[in-house]
Amino acid sequence: MTAPVSAPAYVAVDWGTSSFRLWLIGTDGVVLAERRSGEGMTTAARTGFAEVLQSHLAAVSAPAGLPVLVCGMAGARQGWVEAGYLDTPAALADIPAAAVRVPGLPADIRILPGLAQRDAAAPDVMRGEETQLLGAAAELGDGDHLVCMPGTHSKWVRLSGGRVTGFSTFMTGELFEAIATHTILSHALADAGAIAGGNDAFRAAVARMVANPALATSQMFSVRAGSLIAGLSPVDAKARLSGTLIGLEIAGALSLVAEGTPVTLVVSGGLGALYEKALAAAGLSPVVVDADAAVRKGLAAGAKALWSL
Amino acid sequence: MTAPVSAPAYVAVDWGTSSFRLWLIGTDGVVLAERRSGEGMTTAARTGFAEVLQSHLAAVSAPAGLPVLVCGMAGARQGWVEAGYLDTPAALADIPAAAVRVPGLPADIRILPGLAQRDAAAPDVMRGEETQLLGAAAELGDGDHLVCMPGTHSKWVRLSGGRVTGFSTFMTGELFEAIATHTILSHALADAGAIAGGNDAFRAAVARMVANPALATSQMFSVRAGSLIAGLSPVDAKARLSGTLIGLEIAGALSLVAEGTPVTLVVSGGLGALYEKALAAAGLSPVVVDADAAVRKGLAAGAKALWSL
Repeated sequence: MTAPVSAPAYVAVDWGTSSFRLWLIGTDGVVLAERRSGEGMTTAARTGFAEVLQSHLAAVSAPAGLPVLVCGMAGARQGWVEAGYLDTPAALADIPAAAVRVPGLPADIRILPGLAQRDAAAPDVMRGEETQLLGAAAELGDGDHLVCMPGTHSKWVRLSGGRVTGFSTFMTGELFEAIATHTILSHALADAGAIAGGNDAFRAAVARMVANPALATSQMFSVRAGSLIAGLSPVDAKARLSGTLIGLEIAGALSLVAEGTPVTLVVSGGLGALYEKALAAAGLSPVVVDADAAVRKGLAAGAKALWSL
Repeated sequence: MTAPVSAPAYVAVDWGTSSFRLWLIGTDGVVLAERRSGEGMTTAARTGFAEVLQSHLAAVSAPAGLPVLVCGMAGARQGWVEAGYLDTPAALADIPAAAVRVPGLPADIRILPGLAQRDAAAPDVMRGEETQLLGAAAELGDGDHLVCMPGTHSKWVRLSGGRVTGFSTFMTGELFEAIATHTILSHALADAGAIAGGNDAFRAAVARMVANPALATSQMFSVRAGSLIAGLSPVDAKARLSGTLIGLEIAGALSLVAEGTPVTLVVSGGLGALYEKALAAAGLSPVVVDADAAVRKGLAAGAKALWSL
């Protein structure tokens, strides 16, 4: 005897720059089917957003006309339909109502907005992470929180009582790639293989940045100099560059909150272990929330608010 | 009646990674002839160092057998003949005696060593700048100094009584190129044209880094976000990235010296005006020394010490 299967209620889509993920969700909130592909915004802008979505809906045999809630870069100006931004300070609960409907289609397909910080000294934007935050909100509860969402562009979000009071994007992942590939450090990192997962060189680099972040670009050069005069191995060179960039990010995020503000790490995959080690080297013990689960919960909260699903 | 011309006494060469400069110096210290070319270490490693030098000696009709003193990357491991390093703390006056003679040639050709800082937390090297420091030493006099030498890899040197007590290399220029070309910021900077020379956006970015250097990589992302949501122009975007990197460098260098340590800027060309504006935005009024003159004076000091010329 198989377990009873609930009827499909809605479709949740996390549509990033380079990735597409879709879940068919049942009336009881259970995931009935899942799709993952590389057809992110960049690809879909060429092949057609509606076509990409339709092919995945067909693949999971979604009933015609099922509502679809989308978050992420599909709502960017260069995406499917621009979904704009909520300005900070912004209550997470206000996000779903600001969703934008895709026009000209029979089905009710809506794209959630991003968040914008319109501050002349620190303008910032996010798109996709706000839905993870919405999904993590119940777990976080009220009070002040600092939420770290690592990635190509790491987001550190300051939450107070369910409101985003401000946030900062650190270009950590993208800078790592650009520096490791296109500067003189490439010689020191050659043959390092997969990233060193939080070894001593990594932890020491994080601690140095937390102690004196102003030396960031000098610590980067020390990767080259260490390789020239101190026998720094390629693996340690890579760990040192990685720890410098992640440590700088941690120092920056901490500089904007009161000491002792609880830190939550919203992350999936290999980056989680690396950031846990980095945060430990900075003396922090974060609560860890799975980012994949958070985005699904956020889309579920949106579907509930929009369609009572 | 023409002024009497002194006889050639020695040849001074500043041989960098991508540039070659040679001066024929007379017995009275006057420059009799000068050569500049793009035959730096990278080119000469393919075409032959001896051949490059010989062609320029012939072009200035240097008498055979004239002594030649070289500084810069020609002394690197991948250069002509490895000239090693003096370890910090190092007295500038000790540099000439550590020069290495090019073997197998009739002429006395010597290459000056670089400086190495063998510090596990901040290993660092320089090659070429030590000769500029030697040339600027007389002008600086005794006491404590912080010397800024801007460039692809900016060097900030801590001097005390004619000794280099420590130094830090900031990858400012190389990072600017890599970030402007190979990250998402390239969109915001496109069409900016030549670098913005110290406008308001530049000065504000410098001041923000001096106030809170930990936010460096977030300030970099703000270039993109400002372009997306705040109408940041390409020129201001470029100025903001430049000011962020230079401001970070200034904050880092200042973090290692006592407040009020006098700052000297050793620079030639367009970077000088930009760094003067950056230092002013950080509240500093440096003494400015011409880098071209400093390297010639440093080579002259070396020739005097080695050959009493």
